[in-house]
Amino acid sequence: MHSIVAKPLTADAFAPFGSVIQQAGAPHFPINAGSTERYHRLAVTQACQAEGEDNSAQTIISLFAGQPFDLPVTIELMERHPLGTQAFMPIDGHDWLIVVAATDSEPQPDDLYAFFATGEQGVNYARGVWHHPLLALNTVSRFVVVDREGAGNNLHECRLSEAVLVQGE
Amino acid sequence: MHSIVAKPLTADAFAPFGSVIQQAGAPHFPINAGSTERYHRLAVTQACQAEGEDNSAQTIISLFAGQPFDLPVTIELMERHPLGTQAFMPIDGHDWLIVVAATDSEPQPDDLYAFFATGEQGVNYARGVWHHPLLALNTVSRFVVVDREGAGNNLHECRLSEAVLVQGE
Repeated sequence: MHSIVAKPLTADAFAPFGSVIQQAGAPHFPINAGSTERYHRLAVTQACQAEGEDNSAQTIISLFAGQPFDLPVTIELMERHPLGTQAFMPIDGHDWLIVVAATDSEPQPDDLYAFFATGEQGVNYARGVWHHPLLALNTVSRFVVVDREGAGNNLHECRLSEAVLVQGE
Repeated sequence: MHSIVAKPLTADAFAPFGSVIQQAGAPHFPINAGSTERYHRLAVTQACQAEGEDNSAQTIISLFAGQPFDLPVTIELMERHPLGTQAFMPIDGHDWLIVVAATDSEPQPDDLYAFFATGEQGVNYARGVWHHPLLALNTVSRFVVVDREGAGNNLHECRLSEAVLVQGE
């Protein structure tokens, strides 16, 4: 079976796939007369209208509760959202796993990359970026999710020609 | 000094001011072949274009770190965002305090309402709703914030004619 090793999530390594939502290294400044520090614009959302559809696309906020996976994780299916970004920010402080593919066409096993995110790190998948559905680790983990709702098909799925095993370092 | 008592935050009580982002009572359904439960569309964002401005308005994701306040809290200034919603979801699990005003014109002391939010509850202030800047309680608390960025003035501030004291029950 094709196998990859998950690497620590960094903004640079993740740049081809979207933004990392984290305080470390982020631009920040005081607001509210100094009582709040704003770590600003860590991600920008997109919610595009589907071609020929009405003006229904919205950016919405949801909560996800993800069942935990155990390493090594077998990856068989990838998905992408052609009409919008999708952001995940953990709210329980637990580490989690991210698997993405570096291709615009149907992902092949060689295209996959895996990242370990800490419980302090969220991501915003750029529009159309192939990624695996949510992979909590160790324990049930909740996330704030910011994504698109509206008319049109915003979900592509692709079953890999061969499963990929994601291992820890 | 005018004084109000903070009440527990509920979706019904907060409805005139926006949405409560919480799992309790929310519509939810399994996704990702059952490995994730989605608490869906707890809030809808808005990022309006300012009149006569370019097409620059975006919905962005930031992190706020709020210094703690102690009860009773003295409220002197309120603010609102006429061009967009603003959502706050705690990520450290700490309780926090919300102060809003039930008026479209400049808020008077009699217009204020205060709510205790648990660390499991976020809110999305509806567009144009007067609210106090972030009020963490007890300890420094971090929040995911989803709000608008773009050309035009999206901040109105109003100093109250008389300070209002917010007390616990």
